[in-house]
Amino acid sequence: MRRSKLFVKTRRENPTDEEARNAQLLIRAGYIHKEMAGVYSYFTLGKIVIDKISQIIREEMDAIGGNEVLMSTLQNKELWQASGRWDDKQVDNWFKSRLISGVEVGLGFTHEEPLTSGLRNFVASYQDLPIYAYQIQTKFRNELRAKSGLLRGREFLMKDLYSYSRSEQEHKIFYEKSAEAYLKIYRRLGFDDGIIFRTFASGGVFSKFSDEFQLVTPIGEDTIYIDREKNIAINKEVCTDEVLDSLGLNKTALEEVRAVEIGNIFTLGSKYSDAMGLFFTDKEGQKQSIVMGCYGIGVSRLMGLIAEHFADDLGLVWPKSVSPYSVYLISLGNAADVIEAADKIYKRLTDAGVGVIYDDRGGASAGEKLADADLMGIPMRLVISQKTLQENVYEIKDRTSKEVKLVSESDLIATLEK
Amino acid sequence: MRRSKLFVKTRRENPTDEEARNAQLLIRAGYIHKEMAGVYSYFTLGKIVIDKISQIIREEMDAIGGNEVLMSTLQNKELWQASGRWDDKQVDNWFKSRLISGVEVGLGFTHEEPLTSGLRNFVASYQDLPIYAYQIQTKFRNELRAKSGLLRGREFLMKDLYSYSRSEQEHKIFYEKSAEAYLKIYRRLGFDDGIIFRTFASGGVFSKFSDEFQLVTPIGEDTIYIDREKNIAINKEVCTDEVLDSLGLNKTALEEVRAVEIGNIFTLGSKYSDAMGLFFTDKEGQKQSIVMGCYGIGVSRLMGLIAEHFADDLGLVWPKSVSPYSVYLISLGNAADVIEAADKIYKRLTDAGVGVIYDDRGGASAGEKLADADLMGIPMRLVISQKTLQENVYEIKDRTSKEVKLVSESDLIATLEK
Repeated sequence: MRRSKLFVKTRRENPTDEEARNAQLLIRAGYIHKEMAGVYSYFTLGKIVIDKISQIIREEMDAIGGNEVLMSTLQNKELWQASGRWDDKQVDNWFKSRLISGVEVGLGFTHEEPLTSGLRNFVASYQDLPIYAYQIQTKFRNELRAKSGLLRGREFLMKDLYSYSRSEQEHKIFYEKSAEAYLKIYRRLGFDDGIIFRTFASGGVFSKFSDEFQLVTPIGEDTIYIDREKNIAINKEVCTDEVLDSLGLNKTALEEVRAVEIGNIFTLGSKYSDAMGLFFTDKEGQKQSIVMGCYGIGVSRLMGLIAEHFADDLGLVWPKSVSPYSVYLISLGNAADVIEAADKIYKRLTDAGVGVIYDDRGGASAGEKLADADLMGIPMRLVISQKTLQENVYEIKDRTSKEVKLVSESDLIATLEK
Repeated sequence: MRRSKLFVKTRRENPTDEEARNAQLLIRAGYIHKEMAGVYSYFTLGKIVIDKISQIIREEMDAIGGNEVLMSTLQNKELWQASGRWDDKQVDNWFKSRLISGVEVGLGFTHEEPLTSGLRNFVASYQDLPIYAYQIQTKFRNELRAKSGLLRGREFLMKDLYSYSRSEQEHKIFYEKSAEAYLKIYRRLGFDDGIIFRTFASGGVFSKFSDEFQLVTPIGEDTIYIDREKNIAINKEVCTDEVLDSLGLNKTALEEVRAVEIGNIFTLGSKYSDAMGLFFTDKEGQKQSIVMGCYGIGVSRLMGLIAEHFADDLGLVWPKSVSPYSVYLISLGNAADVIEAADKIYKRLTDAGVGVIYDDRGGASAGEKLADADLMGIPMRLVISQKTLQENVYEIKDRTSKEVKLVSESDLIATLEK
């Protein structure tokens, strides 16, 4: 992508109406636009990052047998009344609207009811189960406060998977598989081992605990206690002597840290399947309840967290796996031979499948281009100048390194294709 | 994908609460689920079709310089007041809701206002234009009646591109480019030349005409007059003697046909850019208005139209380019050698990059499997049976042909990889 064809511009100053660092950085770098508190639009580079994060999650959900679906936003009141979740006293963050006819509709904040109800057409016997359905879809939650940028949105992108199993045992096997898939996702997103902890948190009606996945970071809003040796953690909310005992954790081995929740998985039991009338007939011809689980990851939240967690004083620092492009190519000055050489290497790298954003703007200064490469957080910077041409080398710099390297064309291609 | 891992089932009977043929077929084949009138969810195969249509559109929008974005659903009242489109007397199909604080918000039915407003951060001089931004995003329109299945949704997926040009002339060049891109999209979606017509329709404040793209089909809800020789058409709504004269069309050469609108492009002038305060400074330092255009294609509408247009008495008939899979593989009977051979060819085709849905259900009869292959509309059916094994052949049938063919393994691979 040529910068001259990309409509976004960066800003040096933080937006005045934004207090969250993740959103400040992403707005300054041109990735997102604030529509109102907790509601953001994604411009070109932001859309690519959201898509890359989504694709990693999609691949890992498919790998554990997920079927991708896309549920509607507009929700049918009757379904939610049947489960007891329509009333604003039960769920205080609904967005609701009305059809022209006056009929009330809701905007989905989760999808147990409609999906479970929809499955009634497909589930009769034990042979029709288990089912693992997931979507990457926009959710709406009417948050009273939404001051954390992408970390807590009123409108946000989420991956939600729902599992339907024939027994507690079948459920537990998938639940553990999904926990493993989550840890794979975080590794692929650039988070090292040792900073993500599977964390015991409060459960619901059907399970003593749920599992959160917590990222240890000073910007965290949660407090958790981690046992580094056992590689598990417990949320402060549920950390009593009794619970520690039941988990076999020793208080003295625990370290208190700040953390951010970056995913959670829940055992739901048969609350929603029973309420929606979704049952199955077992091998003996007996009607049985279905054991459900739900498995959430906030996609836009992850984008905000990755932005905030890896950033430095110069701007964003994207992990390679989610960066919109691999290389930020800069032509320094407007000399014809420099432009020609930059055009040539842009074509060569693009043809080789390397994602390049090429700062070809004739009106931008060297300082502006170098600052944008940093602010936009592209992993590798490649500079073509009169000097590099004379020396027949390419100047490259890793976003996280202070040093520039001069390499030959063959070394450049080899480095970038890695 | 193995049928045993796919949670959907087909139905023989039409759903009782659905009168549109496109939705009836798609529901029977397990592609979509009706949440309420005009609101559908997409199950696994439906999600793949929606994604394939979207990807074809995306590629053609990128090819004419489009920058993909993703705007929010929730809309800020002030922006729409500034353009005069907030009031329900001006726009009668808003869905509106409220934040907890009581502040009213809308659900986007189009995105001129927020996108144009968002661009204020990026546009100052003539060097920052033109801009072509598009999205493939869920729209909400509070339709009084929604009885046409995917053809007229209250919630639907749409591609909307907005162009921002420095002059009428620059605008017209892009407008024509986008018309060509639309025709390419329809061809790639499987519509032959000669059934899609670029059609003069009523314009807005800034332009006498807009252009619709109309698919000639007996199921059409519009009446248009086509000039087959000139390969253009005119919507009945604007077809007066005066207009025909101005277009150089001869009444006697026109044929009246039924048609469905499958895309439209509009010249907007500077109504929205002026209202949002988006201007640019020209080379002479003068402040100038920006000429806008908007370019829409209903993605879910197209899915419904393709479903309805190509279907026959046996069910759906997907064009290859949008079919969820290329091959419907059937193992007939439960003999071990048949299953082994079917497993083997499934792996072989999948490894070769051929999309296969493999009906491996032990409990389904031959008749059920063959009927599902037809109803689901997969382009090619491949049958493995005791008989084909004995003769060392594969039985293949094109969805649109009555004849089966027996081919060798090497011919099979060659045919399917084409």
